This record gives sequence, structure tokens and C-alpha cells, in this order.
Amino acid sequence: MNHILQTMLERGSVRSFDPTQKLSPETLETILKAAQQSPTSISGQQYSVIVIEDEAQKDKLLEYTMSSSGLPQQHVKDCSVFLLFLIDFHKTDLVLKKEGSTMGIHHGMEGLLIGSVDVGISLGAATAAAEALGLGTVAIGAIRRSAEDIIKEFKLPQYTFPVVGLCIGYPLDNIKPAPKLRLPLSSFAHKAHYQVSDLNTLLDKYNKEISESMNAPDFKWTSFIASFYNRDYNPHLLALYEKQGFKI
Amino acid sequence: MNHILQTMLERGSVRSFDPTQKLSPETLETILKAAQQSPTSISGQQYSVIVIEDEAQKDKLLEYTMSSSGLPQQHVKDCSVFLLFLIDFHKTDLVLKKEGSTMGIHHGMEGLLIGSVDVGISLGAATAAAEALGLGTVAIGAIRRSAEDIIKEFKLPQYTFPVVGLCIGYPLDNIKPAPKLRLPLSSFAHKAHYQVSDLNTLLDKYNKEISESMNAPDFKWTSFIASFYNRDYNPHLLALYEKQGFKI
Repeated sequence: MNHILQTMLERGSVRSFDPTQKLSPETLETILKAAQQSPTSISGQQYSVIVIEDEAQKDKLLEYTMSSSGLPQQHVKDCSVFLLFLIDFHKTDLVLKKEGSTMGIHHGMEGLLIGSVDVGISLGAATAAAEALGLGTVAIGAIRRSAEDIIKEFKLPQYTFPVVGLCIGYPLDNIKPAPKLRLPLSSFAHKAHYQVSDLNTLLDKYNKEISESMNAPDFKWTSFIASFYNRDYNPHLLALYEKQGFKI
Repeated sequence: MNHILQTMLERGSVRSFDPTQKLSPETLETILKAAQQSPTSISGQQYSVIVIEDEAQKDKLLEYTMSSSGLPQQHVKDCSVFLLFLIDFHKTDLVLKKEGSTMGIHHGMEGLLIGSVDVGISLGAATAAAEALGLGTVAIGAIRRSAEDIIKEFKLPQYTFPVVGLCIGYPLDNIKPAPKLRLPLSSFAHKAHYQVSDLNTLLDKYNKEISESMNAPDFKWTSFIASFYNRDYNPHLLALYEKQGFKI
């Protein structure tokens, strides 16, 4: 088993960064290039990243990513660099104009879906690259709640949308995070067709195992998940997609 | 620079696989575990993969992924394994029911967006893991055009949706693909805020460079992209999302 595979199989997100240790420009460029080299739908490259290292900008991000209960995510400030990943059909629009044509992919679901998947693939590559270099990362979806502020602050043009962020930095005291326990593999990887039969049993098993692995007897994963997914918790974004030029 | 970084920076998709060389069960399991270990929104794990190795199932996939001009994507058949990535809120629905609650995240855009991003991150991890092991991969978005057939064939339950596939296998004659040329890095990675100023120039530069790098003087990237993105090319999926239980 090679080193990177071991790292990937044992990965967990890092939420305590050493704020005094910064990525070298070369290391950052390597991660960005790996993120850009990831596959994209029809090689259309409908993604972009805003690279945020400035302390004042990170202070703003800290505010924009406050948890719904008002708690700051300090790792957003303490990481060395915050990569803000965007769905980006702004460049595509320029391409269509260059061809004397009119963009249509931003009308309907397909464009937003392609853009989201490509952003995800790119973030997956950035994560693998950073962690192969011994760095820690954590993905931040909370940026979407403040998408309107973020669009303004980072000057995001029409046909772009901020989807997810990635903190990258040196783990505090070099502490490697514990591997995040996942649901049993058979509930993720289904042989030949979707296997529904024992999912309920697997969920019960996982509930028990994850609270043990976190050493948190009061934590109940199913209850935590239910507290988020009993609603669309970002319904205000529907109007904002339209404001950015997307029409579903 | 370590080996995996070099591999990531020089990656290109493989479309010619040796159909006689199969992944060992251990290698496949390693890739699946790496894909599952990738970060997911609120650790909700709203993704799944159908693992397709059976030749008859791959024959069906070949049919489902036919290009719009009727050309087969032979790599879908010749790869060792095809991973079909799903947005999966079926498990989430079981979680909500277990908690005596009702799922709401499938109403609105947020659920589909989270699911797409998490699928992308997981595919990004699977790609990095497979390529670190010397294998070749190519992502297949064409599965969405035949999503209805795929849902039936692979028995995908309510609140799931097939988003993208990944062919994995041994490259034919061990031929490493040429690195895929990307747009200039500055059009992908924007320092501090979105940089619009020289995008048009960068697109022209890229048009020239990519046709040279592909040794295809008649290929014009902007024209190729415009031929896809002048419309939503999968408008029929809007009704299928609803049929699978998603209400936008």
C-alpha cells in the first residue's frame, strides 16, 4: 500500500490549525494546479477558486461562516489559505459570445448540476493533494448561507455561484486527526444494483459505533442528521441563483 | 515533489483500457474506501456508488452512454469496473424516519446541490486513489441522458439520482495519457477576488494551445464548448428528478 492511499483511507478533517505556519507559494501553486487538473464535464472547466490568504478577508469569512447557533468556525481564520470554490459559467458565457452564440446551459438544472459536480471533483483533488503533502483540510459548506455577502465581497460576476470552501493549513502541534468513521462500506458501495435490504440495521450499528469512536456517549448521528435535513435550510438561495443569472 | 503529486499534475483521462486486465478485489476495495472516506456535508454521507463489473451490465451501460451522435464509448465496456455515483437521500430518509421526523431536504435546491458536490468530492478521491495505483480513469457524464433506464436497471430507490460514472481499468499497452492542457492557472485561481480583466485574452490563447497540444488543427475548443452549452441539453431530467422524489 503506498503512502497516499494510507493517508486517504485514514483521513479526517482538521479543525485546529497552527495560525503561524503558512504554505509556501510553491506548495499552494501545486495544490491549485492539482485542483485544476481534475476532470471536468466536456472539458468545459466550469469551476473557479478564489484564493484567500489576507487576514482581513479571513475575518470576514469568519463572520460569513458563523454556525446557525452563532458559533465561529475558528479554523476558517487559523488556516493558511481558504479556497472558495465557485460554479463558473461566466467564462462559458464569454466563450459563447466569442462564438457569436448565446449561452443556454444556465437555464434549467443541468448547468448547476454539472458545475456542482465539477467543483466537488476539484475540491476532492485539492484535498488529496494537500493531505499528500502532510497538510490538513476541512471543507466548509456554511459559506452558502452567506452567499449574498460573499458574492459582493469577492466580486463574483454573473453566472458564478459560491458552493463550498476549503481550509488548508498545518495542523496545530502536528496532530493528525482521527480517521472519520463511515457507515459500513456495503451501504455506500452496492454490488450490481442498489441494495436496500439491511440499511436500517447498518444505520443502527453506525449510530453506536460513531458515538463510541468520538468518545461522545450523548452524540446520536441519526438525530444530528435529522436536525438538519428535516427542511431545506437555505431556501433563500433560490432567489439568489436567479439574481446570479441561473434560472431553474 | 512526491509521486502522487506528479501524477495529479500530469493527469489526463484514459479512454483505451485493456479489457483482459481486471482489478483485484483488494484494489477495488481500497479505491471504494478512499471514495467513501472523502468529506461529506455535515457528515451526512448522502452519496452511494453502484459497482458494475458484470459484462451484461456493462453492455447495457454502453447503450445508455451512447453519444448524442450515436457513437459508443467503448471505454465503458473495456474498463475493469464502472462506478455509478448517486446522490443518495434514500438513507437520509431512513434516518429521518428512525428519528420520528420527516425529511425536507429533498424539497428545494439545497439537497441536490449538497448531493452533487459530495458525489463530486467522492469521485475526485476515487480518481486520485486509482491513479496513485497506476490505473487509468475517465468520468462519464453521459449516463444522465439515460437516467431513467439506469434508475430501472440498477434499482435506484426514491430520493436517489445517478449523476456521473467513473471507468477504472488498466490502460491499454500501459500507455499513459498525455496531460490534459488546462486554461491558464490565473483564469481558475483568482487571488483575493474574481479577476475578470484578461479572461478574453486567456481564452484565445488557450484555443490555440489546446488544438496544438492535441495535434488537431481543426479543433476549436470555444466552438466545441458552445455546441453543448447553447442550451440545457438534458431538459427531460427535470421531470425525472420529481419522479425520484426531488421537488425543486
